[in-house]
Amino acid sequence: MTKVIKGNIIFTKVKDSFEVYENSYLIIENGLVKAITHELSDEFIDLPVEDFGNHLIIPGFVDLHLHAPQWPNMGIGYDEKLISWLNLYTFPLESTFDNIDIARINYTNFIKELKLVGTTRACIFATRHLHATKLLISMLRESGIGAYVGKVNMDRNAESPLIEKTKDSIEETLELIKEDSLYKSQIHNPLVNYILTPRFVPSTTPELMTALGEIADEFNLPIQSHLDENPEEITWVKNLHPEISSFAHVYEHFNLLKPNKTIMAHCIYMTDEEIQLIKDKQVYIAHCAASNNNITSGIMPLRRYLDKELLIGIGSDISGGHTLDIRENMIMTIQASKQYHVIHPEYKPISISEAFYLATKGGGNFFGKVGSFELGYEFDALIIDDTNSNKKGLPDEPLTSRLEKFIYTGNPDNIIKRYVRGNEISLD
Amino acid sequence: MTKVIKGNIIFTKVKDSFEVYENSYLIIENGLVKAITHELSDEFIDLPVEDFGNHLIIPGFVDLHLHAPQWPNMGIGYDEKLISWLNLYTFPLESTFDNIDIARINYTNFIKELKLVGTTRACIFATRHLHATKLLISMLRESGIGAYVGKVNMDRNAESPLIEKTKDSIEETLELIKEDSLYKSQIHNPLVNYILTPRFVPSTTPELMTALGEIADEFNLPIQSHLDENPEEITWVKNLHPEISSFAHVYEHFNLLKPNKTIMAHCIYMTDEEIQLIKDKQVYIAHCAASNNNITSGIMPLRRYLDKELLIGIGSDISGGHTLDIRENMIMTIQASKQYHVIHPEYKPISISEAFYLATKGGGNFFGKVGSFELGYEFDALIIDDTNSNKKGLPDEPLTSRLEKFIYTGNPDNIIKRYVRGNEISLD
Repeated sequence: MTKVIKGNIIFTKVKDSFEVYENSYLIIENGLVKAITHELSDEFIDLPVEDFGNHLIIPGFVDLHLHAPQWPNMGIGYDEKLISWLNLYTFPLESTFDNIDIARINYTNFIKELKLVGTTRACIFATRHLHATKLLISMLRESGIGAYVGKVNMDRNAESPLIEKTKDSIEETLELIKEDSLYKSQIHNPLVNYILTPRFVPSTTPELMTALGEIADEFNLPIQSHLDENPEEITWVKNLHPEISSFAHVYEHFNLLKPNKTIMAHCIYMTDEEIQLIKDKQVYIAHCAASNNNITSGIMPLRRYLDKELLIGIGSDISGGHTLDIRENMIMTIQASKQYHVIHPEYKPISISEAFYLATKGGGNFFGKVGSFELGYEFDALIIDDTNSNKKGLPDEPLTSRLEKFIYTGNPDNIIKRYVRGNEISLD
Repeated sequence: MTKVIKGNIIFTKVKDSFEVYENSYLIIENGLVKAITHELSDEFIDLPVEDFGNHLIIPGFVDLHLHAPQWPNMGIGYDEKLISWLNLYTFPLESTFDNIDIARINYTNFIKELKLVGTTRACIFATRHLHATKLLISMLRESGIGAYVGKVNMDRNAESPLIEKTKDSIEETLELIKEDSLYKSQIHNPLVNYILTPRFVPSTTPELMTALGEIADEFNLPIQSHLDENPEEITWVKNLHPEISSFAHVYEHFNLLKPNKTIMAHCIYMTDEEIQLIKDKQVYIAHCAASNNNITSGIMPLRRYLDKELLIGIGSDISGGHTLDIRENMIMTIQASKQYHVIHPEYKPISISEAFYLATKGGGNFFGKVGSFELGYEFDALIIDDTNSNKKGLPDEPLTSRLEKFIYTGNPDNIIKRYVRGNEISLD
């Protein structure tokens, strides 16, 4: 099936500059970008055109790290740092998800907002609860959004019912994986897939990490976790595993760093050896500037990592982050890089095109050909009506300034349509 | 005239904690707070009560520094730093305000948004243009918001028509002051008043600064300007005035630091001598965290200044800042303080109550008894309906958590009423 849409097309093929096609046609075949042209060629001339006039057409936003159950806690508790924040706010909330009704209410609100803010792909932590996680997966499949979702594995360093028994954690994970395999045998190339989700080293025993590493191999599954977020956390890991040289090497030791299939959130304090390991293993970094700031974790050296060509996307990390909106997270990514530049003038700030790249193609790469409008990319897109930001009695701005203005001053109401893999997503 | 309103009342008398009156009555007499009580005493029992149920009642927001004409440029040009940003974006925009129609469109949109976001008092830079400034003053008087407004004075270091002749600058300023005096003779205690507004040292000749210092004395007027925003700017000032020991001392030299009547925006790089001078002169600092970050000016040492008991409020500084919303500027104030803490662990981050204090009473003090609900304070208030952030299948949060959640995740739609000096402000 072939579709043609028309408007002002903007995306980033590389991070240093925008690709801009003013008033142009985008041809989509079976959900993939087939061409972008200023004039329609004979081949497509008879197709109906959906004309978005002066609106912007941009790739959908990719959120590489978030905790769906923490949706109700966004904006609460930011006078605390990581470990006390987890104990005071996060763990008590997550422990309520053994109640499926609480899970349903919160996941309904979460998915509604995720669609609203224009996120088209997301990597999602659920809680440790089997049934609530099944529910979240099925609700995401209904939503039309693309996602990796995992039940959290956590079997040490807290009291029951917060944590689970190792055996239960493995069995329930396998149950979810089997359901996922069954679904895949019925639906070709599904948009929602399972991802192994050990919470972080202090929450998972060596036995559990070993099992998860084996499961990852057996079922060829991706993995997501947290790395080097907070000095107190890093010391804790060091005390738990004094025989292993670094936090990142603990994951490596348990066979949890799979090339191109692993995401580590935060990565603020990586040593040179850890950076090399993350690069060698082609691990994706989910950069969570809002969260890193709110719970005073530190400033990730984004420019330094970009210079080393690490794989990086943006994560909202709700509810360490206070907003699901990747547009707002782009602002905070740029702002954090500017603060870093103030301290280390040799590392220049992130530009607007670089932030946009991270929010689209940078994270999208984890999903395959996602986050760009290059040929063959899956058509995930947002249609932006920025009329309300442009009433100013002055000539129209260049398209890239309009995009910058939408990023800094827009809101979800500016997004009038959302597409994932060529299909429009409904907000209902 | 006496009014009674009821709801969940929250404000900050001191910065370290919230005053919380759950489900209580606020009695307002002639625009001033007369009492807060849990039960209505006999004296007030027969008055009609406006009952806001479970909503929050908080002081209105105070914006201590902003450039009204730059409203259209919010969110544009943040890959630049101060001086190039001024030349590429700000000055070209401001120079269009010799066209009164452009001024009217932009000031209409600006005031509409200022009311929408819940700012009840603001200190405002216009442009250098006489007629556009008159228009802005008269539009603000219509709006019901409280404000200090000044025509910008700038007579050096740019080409005409960007700058004005020294003589014209003085004459036009005097014309505005005379109109202001005439208005004051007709209206008791007006909400909108004139403030002298030399742009900054590099834009104003010694002759003009001398004249403005004399005018300030003669008419007992307040003054607003910029100080120590950017290293390049500071070097420029040093080169312009090598005989004077610091940027702040240039203003002092020209008699422009009036105790309790002067606001200096930014103050990022003050030396110990400058800090002492600002403290001795009781100069207000407008802390503009968004702007300081967007145009990569640096991080103001807010905690250090608070420890020294300097007078501080929050400024949106549009369009260096990208949002008029003081709520969002509170987030960025806290975030900047957390970044500063990461670099200087001895200076702890700003808490949520401290940020709220700065956004209300901290800046409000410049206007008199404004920004709090203590007895005798002018009743500037916002009624917050946070129902939409509270749908979560969990018990209600404490009131202070609800306020924190509104600050981090709310939007102008949560503000259902706005009052200035006891009168409701219409959005129309």
